[in-house]
Amino acid sequence: MSELDLIERITESAIRRDGTLLGVGDDAAVLAGAPGIVVTTDVLVEDVHFRRATTGLRDLGHKALAVNLSDLAAMGADPRAAVVGLVVPPSGLAAVDHDALRAGMEDLAATHGVTIAGGDLTSGPALVLAVTAVGVLDDPASAVTRAGAVPGDVVAVTGALGGAAAGLALLEGRAAPPDPDIGAALVAAHRRPTPRIDFGRTLRRLGAHAMLDCSDGLLLDTGRMASASGVRIEIALDAVPLAPGVARIALALGAEADLFAATGGDDYELIVAMAPADVPRARAEGVVVHPIGHVREGTPSVALTRKGDAVAAPARGGWLHHV
Amino acid sequence: MSELDLIERITESAIRRDGTLLGVGDDAAVLAGAPGIVVTTDVLVEDVHFRRATTGLRDLGHKALAVNLSDLAAMGADPRAAVVGLVVPPSGLAAVDHDALRAGMEDLAATHGVTIAGGDLTSGPALVLAVTAVGVLDDPASAVTRAGAVPGDVVAVTGALGGAAAGLALLEGRAAPPDPDIGAALVAAHRRPTPRIDFGRTLRRLGAHAMLDCSDGLLLDTGRMASASGVRIEIALDAVPLAPGVARIALALGAEADLFAATGGDDYELIVAMAPADVPRARAEGVVVHPIGHVREGTPSVALTRKGDAVAAPARGGWLHHV
Repeated sequence: MSELDLIERITESAIRRDGTLLGVGDDAAVLAGAPGIVVTTDVLVEDVHFRRATTGLRDLGHKALAVNLSDLAAMGADPRAAVVGLVVPPSGLAAVDHDALRAGMEDLAATHGVTIAGGDLTSGPALVLAVTAVGVLDDPASAVTRAGAVPGDVVAVTGALGGAAAGLALLEGRAAPPDPDIGAALVAAHRRPTPRIDFGRTLRRLGAHAMLDCSDGLLLDTGRMASASGVRIEIALDAVPLAPGVARIALALGAEADLFAATGGDDYELIVAMAPADVPRARAEGVVVHPIGHVREGTPSVALTRKGDAVAAPARGGWLHHV
Repeated sequence: MSELDLIERITESAIRRDGTLLGVGDDAAVLAGAPGIVVTTDVLVEDVHFRRATTGLRDLGHKALAVNLSDLAAMGADPRAAVVGLVVPPSGLAAVDHDALRAGMEDLAATHGVTIAGGDLTSGPALVLAVTAVGVLDDPASAVTRAGAVPGDVVAVTGALGGAAAGLALLEGRAAPPDPDIGAALVAAHRRPTPRIDFGRTLRRLGAHAMLDCSDGLLLDTGRMASASGVRIEIALDAVPLAPGVARIALALGAEADLFAATGGDDYELIVAMAPADVPRARAEGVVVHPIGHVREGTPSVALTRKGDAVAAPARGGWLHHV
């Protein structure tokens, strides 16, 4: 079975017991209660999700926690704690490496008031980091799922895209940076993504209709929102904000910059569907909102345009694994 | 660094932020609030913690959830949900295997009203199952830690020991079962341990002083209680209850039955320190209580006796990994 087949199988077979508002199939699970508990987990495997040649242990610690906090952000939840399962390969993990991994997590945890509350450490054939983040929502029914987008909504992202993919290209020597500062920013976008906790909370409070984080690429993740909501989503590629330097690096790689940014993945901005009137309200509260498209009635799908003309979606619309 | 060194390093470096009552170093972490959130994680790696030759996928699903629920039981918490990180090796996982893994989890989850609320699926070099369980405690300050044992307490276990280790010996062909029914029960003790959720809840409500689950063997885990509580714990080996068949299998293996049971691990009974007057109160509420020793003042340590005579603790007092 492919990974997507297996995920679908899990989603279909999920059983919700009393007290679970939302189970498998969204960014995080939400348990009923006051407050509601929001929980999400992500597993990072060496040479599948990261390479130590391009991701230091401190970066890895940051990223492993960041991707989980991003899932909580996408529900609009307040993060509280994380637990860490660590599998150490036969080559071991030096004390300095362990300290770096932990420092990367603790620094990000401190920023968001999160406690690294426990963990499990074991040996195994490869470095594996399984992080579970736990958050709360005073009103668990207010969690913003992927399924609430309605025709007429604006679709927006909370920041520039393509930076992480461009940063990885730099790290792998596939492209050269336009200038050192821009290069450093792109590498940081790959290594140390920012979970949009505050944006997610504010967007939930303002009544955003649907939200998820852009981890696997804009096209794939927007497709998930379209499927879950039962709507057609139109995206104007020329409205997709590009991180500085992405256009030149995409050109050097022989790619179209907007599609490069829309399929690169790993950016961890939020993708949100909201009433048009809420865009200025969100901006007034400090949320970065870049409208990139609209929700329409129709067969669940994502339609792309560039300067008003239809653009065929690339065969591979995103990434399930990023190395 | 050895695993124990690294765990110690993690424990020492743990930072508790506002709202965390109890962090790294107990069975589970407890977050302040009403209700308090209790969270624990365990990672099982193929050929480190289990072998597919002796543990079917359905058993694995049961056990991966059971060990986490056992950690919640040891805090006296009510389990609510679990999330699952699954790493699938290059050889893949057939649909039938996946369904078996899931069924093993769902059956146990149903018994305890737990929702398998989400997960993450990825590929990697080996089968790895990282399960995180989340529970609640109306009063998080009532969580039963390892650290509360006081001189004068009775130390007890909630069931017979040695069954899981004897079952593994049968599965590996190192011993023959005394009779088929007993053999089946021992194998089940290894494959499908029972998390003592109800016992843990009742013992917490009755004011048990310290508690942890017996996952790494009675001696090692009692040693953890002694260290955390700053007490000497005396265990009468002849009072340790043995699962049926354990004595004969230990004999066949050339081991002393009581030490075999006290070091075998994987039994997942609770080890509890409680006031002597609470033993009959707990029994009156249906908790199985086998007193096996006492808490004394003294250097944190575990002292063993057999028929009143001191017995030297074996060099290897328990197991960190059980295959």
